Amino acid sequence: MQRTLSHQLPTQVGAAVRIAGWVHRRRMLKSVAFLIVRDAAGLAQVVVTDPAARAELEKLSEETVVEVTATVTANETAPAGVELTDPTVRPLGPPAVPPPFDLYRPALTASLPTQLDHAPTALRHPTRSAALRISAAAVAGFRAALDGRDFVEIHTPKVVSSSTESGANVFALDWFGRPAYLAQSPQFYKQLMVGVFERVYEVGPVFRAEPHDTVRHLAQYTSLDVELGFIADHRDVMVVLRDTLAGMLGTVGERAGGALATLGVEVPAVPAQIPAVHFTEALTIAGAPADEPDLAPAHERALGEWARREHGSDFLFVTGYPMKKRPFYTHPDPAQPAYSNGFDLLFRGLELVTGGQRLHRHDDYLAALAARGEPVEPYAGYLDAFRHGMPPHGGFAIGLERFVARLVGAANIREVTAFPRDLHRLTP
Amino acid sequence: MQRTLSHQLPTQVGAAVRIAGWVHRRRMLKSVAFLIVRDAAGLAQVVVTDPAARAELEKLSEETVVEVTATVTANETAPAGVELTDPTVRPLGPPAVPPPFDLYRPALTASLPTQLDHAPTALRHPTRSAALRISAAAVAGFRAALDGRDFVEIHTPKVVSSSTESGANVFALDWFGRPAYLAQSPQFYKQLMVGVFERVYEVGPVFRAEPHDTVRHLAQYTSLDVELGFIADHRDVMVVLRDTLAGMLGTVGERAGGALATLGVEVPAVPAQIPAVHFTEALTIAGAPADEPDLAPAHERALGEWARREHGSDFLFVTGYPMKKRPFYTHPDPAQPAYSNGFDLLFRGLELVTGGQRLHRHDDYLAALAARGEPVEPYAGYLDAFRHGMPPHGGFAIGLERFVARLVGAANIREVTAFPRDLHRLTP
Repeated sequence: MQRTLSHQLPTQVGAAVRIAGWVHRRRMLKSVAFLIVRDAAGLAQVVVTDPAARAELEKLSEETVVEVTATVTANETAPAGVELTDPTVRPLGPPAVPPPFDLYRPALTASLPTQLDHAPTALRHPTRSAALRISAAAVAGFRAALDGRDFVEIHTPKVVSSSTESGANVFALDWFGRPAYLAQSPQFYKQLMVGVFERVYEVGPVFRAEPHDTVRHLAQYTSLDVELGFIADHRDVMVVLRDTLAGMLGTVGERAGGALATLGVEVPAVPAQIPAVHFTEALTIAGAPADEPDLAPAHERALGEWARREHGSDFLFVTGYPMKKRPFYTHPDPAQPAYSNGFDLLFRGLELVTGGQRLHRHDDYLAALAARGEPVEPYAGYLDAFRHGMPPHGGFAIGLERFVARLVGAANIREVTAFPRDLHRLTP
Repeated sequence: MQRTLSHQLPTQVGAAVRIAGWVHRRRMLKSVAFLIVRDAAGLAQVVVTDPAARAELEKLSEETVVEVTATVTANETAPAGVELTDPTVRPLGPPAVPPPFDLYRPALTASLPTQLDHAPTALRHPTRSAALRISAAAVAGFRAALDGRDFVEIHTPKVVSSSTESGANVFALDWFGRPAYLAQSPQFYKQLMVGVFERVYEVGPVFRAEPHDTVRHLAQYTSLDVELGFIADHRDVMVVLRDTLAGMLGTVGERAGGALATLGVEVPAVPAQIPAVHFTEALTIAGAPADEPDLAPAHERALGEWARREHGSDFLFVTGYPMKKRPFYTHPDPAQPAYSNGFDLLFRGLELVTGGQRLHRHDDYLAALAARGEPVEPYAGYLDAFRHGMPPHGGFAIGLERFVARLVGAANIREVTAFPRDLHRLTP
């Protein structure tokens, strides 16, 4: 008999079915016992009245994998209006050792470190798996939005011969006797691939040897990287980012409705045009001194409130960050070269995405490195391509785990990461 | 004026347009000069007759990025039946330094090492970019096939505390003072996630410190990993693999038709039911001694010919490989425990995919490791989850670059990899 998933049961009333899943909970009442079976689609209630079957049920600990053949019976008081009666329950493996926390309670009561230590079982809890379902939907929406706009997906090296960003916080490894590093971002590779496909994206791991233990940082995270050529300036990138975000959230709404409901989250609306303020204006709105070189968290919060109040928007672009606060490959604003064609996207007062226009002329790279007193040599291999004709281009990167954490309001990014890696954690 | 891509020109005859791209080639004839502009969509021919414009064109080396405003004019002899006349050509950057090989010739004449040394420009050649477009389409088809079958995409750690496969060929690194390794596969993680979502897949990099320099091996490649629970045995996995393959090749046909044409490749048909032979039968067909423990390349070629001849199929499953040739997590065939519930999929006589049913009982893992004289300790963190209820499950992994290389008939896997990593190569 073909297996039926729990969410299909309401359409099968009267039929004999076979379900399979985990023993989520048993409730042994006097005259009847209830077995709640959890599968990928949800929960099913099995009613056990036969004394022999009840005795067998006593032996099946929570999380034991079972198969149940039974009749689907309508019952208004049961979950989704149906339950399974007259069951035959067969274990598909030995009785499970119960996990160190109860998976059947509405919330996981174990501390986050305990959950992470036992991630393979903790992730079975609906609140934990819901975040990962939202994550999968967000990535699917990301790709669909970009595929629809002629972007090509790429895969780039995660081990490099020199660090691509600041030089700090890199993991070093031995590559057949040569020093090498885990890539902190696919920044240069995606830029180089603009020379091939004009528009590219990559979904892949990046690595930051972040020595601080914070609720916002992981040492490995999934970066959603986008780069496009033949732009006029950063505003063309912002348009693509707006559409990509709308695609991501749209797909989350379509594909992960159950997960959103589990977490009590509503998908925010992305305005057709996200409001944008220049950095200098942002300082004024936030009540910050005009000579501040960057926005502090309190400023970002004030800007988030302002965007909500003035524009009814959860999102706000801040453009024109000072050049000295942006990476060397950032393109300056031609009209005010102390400011950049770089932007941040704030979501409810928190930085969600960073992007901007990049330099595209080889000479500009040399000048930018010289101005910062940085050597050319570590970048020479990448920069060479800029001698061979690169169009004006720009892009952005979204940290997937951070995006999901902010969307669902998780206090710690580790709550939405299957197997986080950080200063202290290298297992499971 | 909005930019027009080259492939849109045939519908714009008579219109004034703006195109942009790279100077692909210039042909300076006596009375006229032709400028061929390459963009992401293809080539456009620009006719230059004005002497001043011709003088400017002389200065624009190949690969310089330009913008052209002109009139679209029908001309039967021009590519796609149109050319651009009365143009204004504006460079979007400084004149390019020509690459060390001609990108405008039908084939790249440079040696593969030279191409790889100059990958950012070599990849601009249509034959090189075509393979990457096919790769992107194959991955899109992979995901679509699995999304349609209720699989959930996951992202797992690429740095682990112990090696997950044989223990050999791992890259070691320093993780905040602790020894760590680059993951050779997401094998255990995908198995653990079957406990959460039942059906999962991952597209991500894996790392093999392969000390041999061969045309088939990379030290980093993109692994397409699939795992599913509640299977009867490996045959349920083979059904999903067949459908996934069909989805991949279907999407390649739909999305990468131009790339296939560039490479002269036809997409092979995937039979509704891929023929399957047991390992013992495969030895007989290949004319190998009955006590051979594995299939040699010559045997696989013979099997490929047999499948073509007897079944009209480019694909052939070989099932039931001897247990001693499969990893310890492989599930034995309950009826003949010396043979496994593992399979290989051959494509035209070459191994394309490996998969099978895995052990799902904790005790079986302990016994399997003991039988091989391997310690439990390095695997303890993973195996613990198998105490907490895991369903019968199995899966497979497809090496993306190898898949594309075989599909397009590339002699060397590096021809279809943007920035390969191997024993000798860590740049660009």
